[in-house]
Amino acid sequence: MTDPRTPTPLDIEAAAARIRGHVRRTPVIRIEAGELAPCPVILKLESLQHAGSFKPRGAFNTLLQQDPLPRRVIAASGGNHGIAVAHAARSLRLEAEIFVPLISSPVKVERLRRLGASVRQTGRDYAEALAAMRERQAETGALDIHAYDAPATVAGQGTLAMELEEQAGDMQAVLFAVGGGGLIGGALAWMGTRVPVIGVEPHTSSALNAALEAGEPVDVEVSGVAADSLGARRIGRIAFDLASDRLCRSLLVADGTITRARRWLFDELRIVTEPGGATALAALLEGGVDIDIDPSRPLAVVVCGGNGSVDELTAS
Amino acid sequence: MTDPRTPTPLDIEAAAARIRGHVRRTPVIRIEAGELAPCPVILKLESLQHAGSFKPRGAFNTLLQQDPLPRRVIAASGGNHGIAVAHAARSLRLEAEIFVPLISSPVKVERLRRLGASVRQTGRDYAEALAAMRERQAETGALDIHAYDAPATVAGQGTLAMELEEQAGDMQAVLFAVGGGGLIGGALAWMGTRVPVIGVEPHTSSALNAALEAGEPVDVEVSGVAADSLGARRIGRIAFDLASDRLCRSLLVADGTITRARRWLFDELRIVTEPGGATALAALLEGGVDIDIDPSRPLAVVVCGGNGSVDELTAS
Repeated sequence: MTDPRTPTPLDIEAAAARIRGHVRRTPVIRIEAGELAPCPVILKLESLQHAGSFKPRGAFNTLLQQDPLPRRVIAASGGNHGIAVAHAARSLRLEAEIFVPLISSPVKVERLRRLGASVRQTGRDYAEALAAMRERQAETGALDIHAYDAPATVAGQGTLAMELEEQAGDMQAVLFAVGGGGLIGGALAWMGTRVPVIGVEPHTSSALNAALEAGEPVDVEVSGVAADSLGARRIGRIAFDLASDRLCRSLLVADGTITRARRWLFDELRIVTEPGGATALAALLEGGVDIDIDPSRPLAVVVCGGNGSVDELTAS
Repeated sequence: MTDPRTPTPLDIEAAAARIRGHVRRTPVIRIEAGELAPCPVILKLESLQHAGSFKPRGAFNTLLQQDPLPRRVIAASGGNHGIAVAHAARSLRLEAEIFVPLISSPVKVERLRRLGASVRQTGRDYAEALAAMRERQAETGALDIHAYDAPATVAGQGTLAMELEEQAGDMQAVLFAVGGGGLIGGALAWMGTRVPVIGVEPHTSSALNAALEAGEPVDVEVSGVAADSLGARRIGRIAFDLASDRLCRSLLVADGTITRARRWLFDELRIVTEPGGATALAALLEGGVDIDIDPSRPLAVVVCGGNGSVDELTAS
């Protein structure tokens, strides 16, 4: 049974119309069979999006539904959602206050500051930053934009799947990195059972995998290279209900494989990603995980975030 | 009057069929009006190509016309053509010997070595490396693949313009960086007078601009940030004849503006380019050059090379 807040494909179409012009239609590139997998791989390069991740889709969809627009917005984030909210706020001339945990990468905190947001860095992980944000929101009354478990957020992220399906045609499956589940939730809501949707999580931040095993959202410990983008302690309810309803799998990958995936993207395409942005691709690399692949049809992989440090890519 | 060796659109279509599967169809991304120019800008992200530049198009087109394939290939290059020849040679299991000048960036020399080529670093600039290569070629009899002024090279590079036209539709003009003229020559051969083709060169390496002013190819001094990719001393004959026949302009940009264009591509899209790869975009940036822009139709800009150092991008 799915959450009654679950967006429908119509909600996602409406979101796409609402955010048009505010987000980029990010490109895809086809990698021939043999390079990454026994089949062609379509990479959706969402790291080229405004603010460096898919998050502006949900942020703009949430904001542009408000009438009138609020003057102030507030959000808690591992980093990328905050950058997206700050970007959207600046583009709509609103004030933004963003709470990020101490583990947020310096690259992300720097991007937040450059966007003119008030940045509060507090708490060990996303969950603690969220608690601090809620206290503050009660004082200021600013509009709170949730990073993943809100219908408007999920519908906005679902526009990525809609675009990908237009661009990539007959895919055998799509791989998404999973943190709190906003992106994969939107994809499941859009694609239904038409295209198999597969989650990929680091062993070190595996909220969806743990929830599917337990039969309900449960808390997990988060750590590892992708913790600042995928480190939600508990999967969102909307995503969990869709994932369990659609029998979606969540594959687990090692941190070292994620690092190898980032290096592949840099060496082969000269694009910079962050660990969370390369996590879905990690499932295809040697030492990643086994997927049963049909060599005749493309597999799509979403490269969902680019706010990574370049130093880690060039150090050998 | 154009050079009788000038490729025709049919040659370019044949090249596209020949190299299919060996080169990537690189993506385009649309940047909305107001971000880079008063009109939408379509960036063709050829820096995501195999070997990090458009050069494999010409290299594969040359090689795959040989019957039988040679066992050994040789080339002189500022770096990118050499990397492309080494890549193509490895993929077709041939031996490659590449001559690059001392100004070639360490990033490029390192990429050449990783591709298994024999690398000879000699001479102050491309012209001197070319002379050394010719001596060696006379000894070994290896197939010599010219970096720009050969029909098969120009026809191969022309496939980029063919792809771009399929992807970008009704462009008001296309901007290309110009070194020896292989890429812009291919574009002029493909597009004819259908789409205005505009060259962009650094003040510090301006072989096409100088030739158009003199009415014939003349030698120029080369230096500056993009010298290792755009630093041909003299424009190729095929490109020159096409450019003067079609009244093509070559705009000049400052080295500092090229650096700003690289930073824009990194900050906004998280893609790494080299100076030559960002030179066409530099013409759109403040302090670049004036172009008469129709706000209603997209302008296309080719981002043609990605073999740049990341250090220069992150240093502030």
